[in-house]
Amino acid sequence: MANVTVVGASGYLGGELLRILINHPEVDEIVPVSRRLSNKSVSSLHRNLLNIFDKKFVDLNLDGIETDVAFFAAPPGEWFSSLPGLIDRGIKVITLGGKFRIKDAEIDKEVYGGYENKELLSERVYGLPEIYREEIKKAMFVTNPGCYPVSVILGIIPLKKFKDKVDLEKIVVTSITGTSGAGATPSENLHHPEVSGNIRPYNVLFHRHVPEMEFILNEFFGKIKISFTPIISDMKRGILSSVTLFSDSFDIDVNLNDHYKKHYKNEPFVRIASEIPNVANVIDSNFCDIMAEYVPDSRRIIIISAIDNLIKGGSGQAVQNMNLMLGFDEKMGLNMIGGHP
Amino acid sequence: MANVTVVGASGYLGGELLRILINHPEVDEIVPVSRRLSNKSVSSLHRNLLNIFDKKFVDLNLDGIETDVAFFAAPPGEWFSSLPGLIDRGIKVITLGGKFRIKDAEIDKEVYGGYENKELLSERVYGLPEIYREEIKKAMFVTNPGCYPVSVILGIIPLKKFKDKVDLEKIVVTSITGTSGAGATPSENLHHPEVSGNIRPYNVLFHRHVPEMEFILNEFFGKIKISFTPIISDMKRGILSSVTLFSDSFDIDVNLNDHYKKHYKNEPFVRIASEIPNVANVIDSNFCDIMAEYVPDSRRIIIISAIDNLIKGGSGQAVQNMNLMLGFDEKMGLNMIGGHP
Amino acid sequence: MANVTVVGASGYLGGELLRILINHPEVDEIVPVSRRLSNKSVSSLHRNLLNIFDKKFVDLNLDGIETDVAFFAAPPGEWFSSLPGLIDRGIKVITLGGKFRIKDAEIDKEVYGGYENKELLSERVYGLPEIYREEIKKAMFVTNPGCYPVSVILGIIPLKKFKDKVDLEKIVVTSITGTSGAGATPSENLHHPEVSGNIRPYNVLFHRHVPEMEFILNEFFGKIKISFTPIISDMKRGILSSVTLFSDSFDIDVNLNDHYKKHYKNEPFVRIASEIPNVANVIDSNFCDIMAEYVPDSRRIIIISAIDNLIKGGSGQAVQNMNLMLGFDEKMGLNMIGGHP
Amino acid sequence: MANVTVVGASGYLGGELLRILINHPEVDEIVPVSRRLSNKSVSSLHRNLLNIFDKKFVDLNLDGIETDVAFFAAPPGEWFSSLPGLIDRGIKVITLGGKFRIKDAEIDKEVYGGYENKELLSERVYGLPEIYREEIKKAMFVTNPGCYPVSVILGIIPLKKFKDKVDLEKIVVTSITGTSGAGATPSENLHHPEVSGNIRPYNVLFHRHVPEMEFILNEFFGKIKISFTPIISDMKRGILSSVTLFSDSFDIDVNLNDHYKKHYKNEPFVRIASEIPNVANVIDSNFCDIMAEYVPDSRRIIIISAIDNLIKGGSGQAVQNMNLMLGFDEKMGLNMIGGHP
Repeated sequence: MANVTVVGASGYLGGELLRILINHPEVDEIVPVSRRLSNKSVSSLHRNLLNIFDKKFVDLNLDGIETDVAFFAAPPGEWFSSLPGLIDRGIKVITLGGKFRIKDAEIDKEVYGGYENKELLSERVYGLPEIYREEIKKAMFVTNPGCYPVSVILGIIPLKKFKDKVDLEKIVVTSITGTSGAGATPSENLHHPEVSGNIRPYNVLFHRHVPEMEFILNEFFGKIKISFTPIISDMKRGILSSVTLFSDSFDIDVNLNDHYKKHYKNEPFVRIASEIPNVANVIDSNFCDIMAEYVPDSRRIIIISAIDNLIKGGSGQAVQNMNLMLGFDEKMGLNMIGGHP
Repeated sequence: MANVTVVGASGYLGGELLRILINHPEVDEIVPVSRRLSNKSVSSLHRNLLNIFDKKFVDLNLDGIETDVAFFAAPPGEWFSSLPGLIDRGIKVITLGGKFRIKDAEIDKEVYGGYENKELLSERVYGLPEIYREEIKKAMFVTNPGCYPVSVILGIIPLKKFKDKVDLEKIVVTSITGTSGAGATPSENLHHPEVSGNIRPYNVLFHRHVPEMEFILNEFFGKIKISFTPIISDMKRGILSSVTLFSDSFDIDVNLNDHYKKHYKNEPFVRIASEIPNVANVIDSNFCDIMAEYVPDSRRIIIISAIDNLIKGGSGQAVQNMNLMLGFDEKMGLNMIGGHP
Repeated sequence: MANVTVVGASGYLGGELLRILINHPEVDEIVPVSRRLSNKSVSSLHRNLLNIFDKKFVDLNLDGIETDVAFFAAPPGEWFSSLPGLIDRGIKVITLGGKFRIKDAEIDKEVYGGYENKELLSERVYGLPEIYREEIKKAMFVTNPGCYPVSVILGIIPLKKFKDKVDLEKIVVTSITGTSGAGATPSENLHHPEVSGNIRPYNVLFHRHVPEMEFILNEFFGKIKISFTPIISDMKRGILSSVTLFSDSFDIDVNLNDHYKKHYKNEPFVRIASEIPNVANVIDSNFCDIMAEYVPDSRRIIIISAIDNLIKGGSGQAVQNMNLMLGFDEKMGLNMIGGHP
Repeated sequence: MANVTVVGASGYLGGELLRILINHPEVDEIVPVSRRLSNKSVSSLHRNLLNIFDKKFVDLNLDGIETDVAFFAAPPGEWFSSLPGLIDRGIKVITLGGKFRIKDAEIDKEVYGGYENKELLSERVYGLPEIYREEIKKAMFVTNPGCYPVSVILGIIPLKKFKDKVDLEKIVVTSITGTSGAGATPSENLHHPEVSGNIRPYNVLFHRHVPEMEFILNEFFGKIKISFTPIISDMKRGILSSVTLFSDSFDIDVNLNDHYKKHYKNEPFVRIASEIPNVANVIDSNFCDIMAEYVPDSRRIIIISAIDNLIKGGSGQAVQNMNLMLGFDEKMGLNMIGGHP
């Protein structure tokens, strides 16, 4: 059994962490931390938790936390400086923000600025079990991947077998996201009347998740360049990524989807679909659904992947990492199945 | 452990039954029955179940089913005639359609026509545990309530204490529903472009759920008359019911919401909220959220209740009934918590 | 030809005013006033107007406006004190806010507080041409009705012929609204993830539009009491009102819908429908669609009405009033037809 | 003044044609043709037209139509054989279906099968005024472009100046569409519960609009190959296309968006936006909004374009063509401005 602390429990990722941890068979006490909402009932904010988790948010001195695992789902802030101490005291740390994801001090600084702790950066493990399972098992400090990167990296990584046949610098990714990915803070761009019935690309010239995708993928591919178009749509949850790569020499006898099935055959949370994935099939679950095909006419590899941005793209992923770090069954507490419809 | 059979497993209620039963700790084998889709993989239709439940639909002779519990989520049909035999053979039966809900042969015939088996009708127990828990525990044949009636009956029944103070013949109910309530068969009215961005009342002169609500409530109130307006909205799941009753003599010192809290204090799936309920808080869960207030100025009692139409209004309710009928913990398999957002 | 000034042109009602006035055959110059966005291009905010209306917002001394008509779509504020001067100088004034709608100084003060100018209040005409057309034609100062009241008052007013047969104190109104009615300012309640897939009642104990409905209707009915439930839904435009009244003595030979057709036969913007109205049919138009029926079984009169909250419930209504005040054809500039789907 | 006939008036494109033609200053009589709904009132189906256009659908012998212009918005069928006769009799014909769009008998046959009339094919003019205005003015027979091709061709055509600098065979297009594009006939894929809250790619291996885009563009570019991913989203109207092209030698001093502004400076219905387009800005209007940028880091040209699929992508486009064919002002009847929000 483990005690866990959720810092930033008032946000959407924090709330989804609570929702999952509450039903986790090996989780004992859960401490919901929020400075802003200290003393307010958790279920008055996350009203889905009414009668289930009616504790109050607490405001803790983060340096002194007594817990087995600390999740940090809070926005960037002073709490960065508490991490080394926690880790030294044997507390396992999982961060859900962008900072530390890119294990290159220069890029990390350029993209996320602020706090510099190169030592911490060198310790961190990127929390994508489909690639780094063994490292995660041994890690004290895991950085959970970004939501877009989960859908894109899981879609591309099986192609490493064919990397010499693919134009790595002309990869086009279009990702359509639900609005919860931007968090719980109201803004003009996410004001309901502006989103309802609308489709709106944003950050098409630069999105901070691109260096993350490229950094991780390039440990395996070397020189990937991603042309990324993120698009906000009128739904609250889910990411659908469409990935196009070109190959002038792809062997048309290879059944790419079968290769993906084989590649992921032991993965509990990646499903290779025979039909084109959509987000409804994965919402409220920790699954990533993927389909991959080669189209000879346009010499194009097309990959479609779908996740729930707050679960496999956030809190479910974080619990999967916790399970690995604590030696639990990796699937524990993650048996939620999405609904139909 | 129990083996269960789901007749009509290709519909939305059937699919949600599978989704819940798959994770039910005391359910062993699940047999998905569909004549139309016999031999087709369940997860090719209910794609949320991919890699989780990849069995094929089967077409069974219903008279010969070997199972502990048989759920009937199919449209009205010949299967009615198989019920007495199943029950005689000791199989517990739970129907999710409208037939048999009204234990009055004349109304039943008028509203649902067709098949007549007065004996069966007299055996049936109405599957709303908040009212008939003890009867359900002993029943061989339970009719699951309609989705609208669940939200309305649970909202009104605690008023029985005040029934002499309320104008029982002028009860106004407006219920707003998601589209999944109408089932999986495409129609012009539920063609996406006709629903998107729209709000559309229907059946305002007569809806078949009204006699059901009135019949059940009148076991306790005597002469209730409900003026019902059902409305289709641009969401796929959820029912929000707004109930207005008038009372010229209500004691303004009574805190009605507190009375509701007390009334439902032992109910695992009814939550009395301090803030106005909404459907997002209950979707993907078996909860019914309710708030009740008296407004002295207009001498109005206003009750708002919210459910997931496919869970507490359908498949979750059916599993709750199964748990009671089989002697399991009533909450077993129903610990799903909805998400936020 | 007329010159017009739109104060509060950066809001949704202001933007819709511009959209309509731009195509109005008798409108010459349009001055868009916004203190907050002064010097910013109108079409950078209302991007639907790109290449059509690329003027900049201006910040004017409201006392010195030179214009034929001044629309005030701004939130309550200091501009109240400019109105008497404008009117004295012969400028026709149309306000779109709640202040002044209730021609009763005490209620007006109670509901809208703040600024008191009883003289101004006594001059104002309520801008609902279906009731006050002749007064509007002669008015210098018109207060545009609230969006909910338009849909409710137009739905109820034809019943004045039957007022002795109806229980006037037990009128139940449920109105479902799109989110644009709450304006362009972001808030937690209208943050997209909180609205998407949701249905949420609010202000069920008191909504400021109720005294307005009651005040206007009671000029004709005497003692109407409305039990009102406003509900936010996942759409950006439209209001659907469901009105229930009880009548123990209604003549069942009266075809109520035919009475409504007759009542409104000369009204250009009220359409009596033979089928139940929905909001999609009226969005982007100045129409109010209504259906009325008597249901003998429950002795209930049910009226369904639908409007575009920003057009017949706001800016279209205001232009209709302007047309009357300036002696133009009442329909001028208002020939927009909604789309299907 | 012109008399017009709309064949297939019961579909969405037919209905939008009526909506636009009703307010067209130079259109006199409109004949709505529908075999299926003959004698049914148009406004009982297109309820937005209630009290505006209450004629009945008629079933005509198409060979004998007396009219100035005949629009064919019907599905493929026998009516193909009536076209030559109509044209011979001087009736101007505008078709809104896919047949005839590709002026290459072999591709046309392969993609659209069936009816072959090479002569008719050779006479047809592709109805995109931004490219073929002069030909349209003189044409007797215009084929209206597909909805996706409008958004994609208008987005790419200004690049012809740079065609030697662009990799023409690796063009990636992702288009997100509203559901009305698939027409008014219900289907499982467009059943509301399956679309609501969902994002779903389809036809990723082959879509019939791709040969159309390539055929038209290759009159100017020579060897374009488009990798196309169409995606259905939870909105009823609008298409947003994201186009990526690669250029290793693009001159970074060129301001691509300015080039687009210059290219389209005389076009009444193409707007080059300084901010990323979205569909809400163009819905209910005949505009195509476009933005184009070069991203040096990934050597990518990114173009975003947005249209209302039923207007600029269908009926508005058809009326624009009619205006040109009849010598009217090209903008006549097309001054609809979309709303905000």
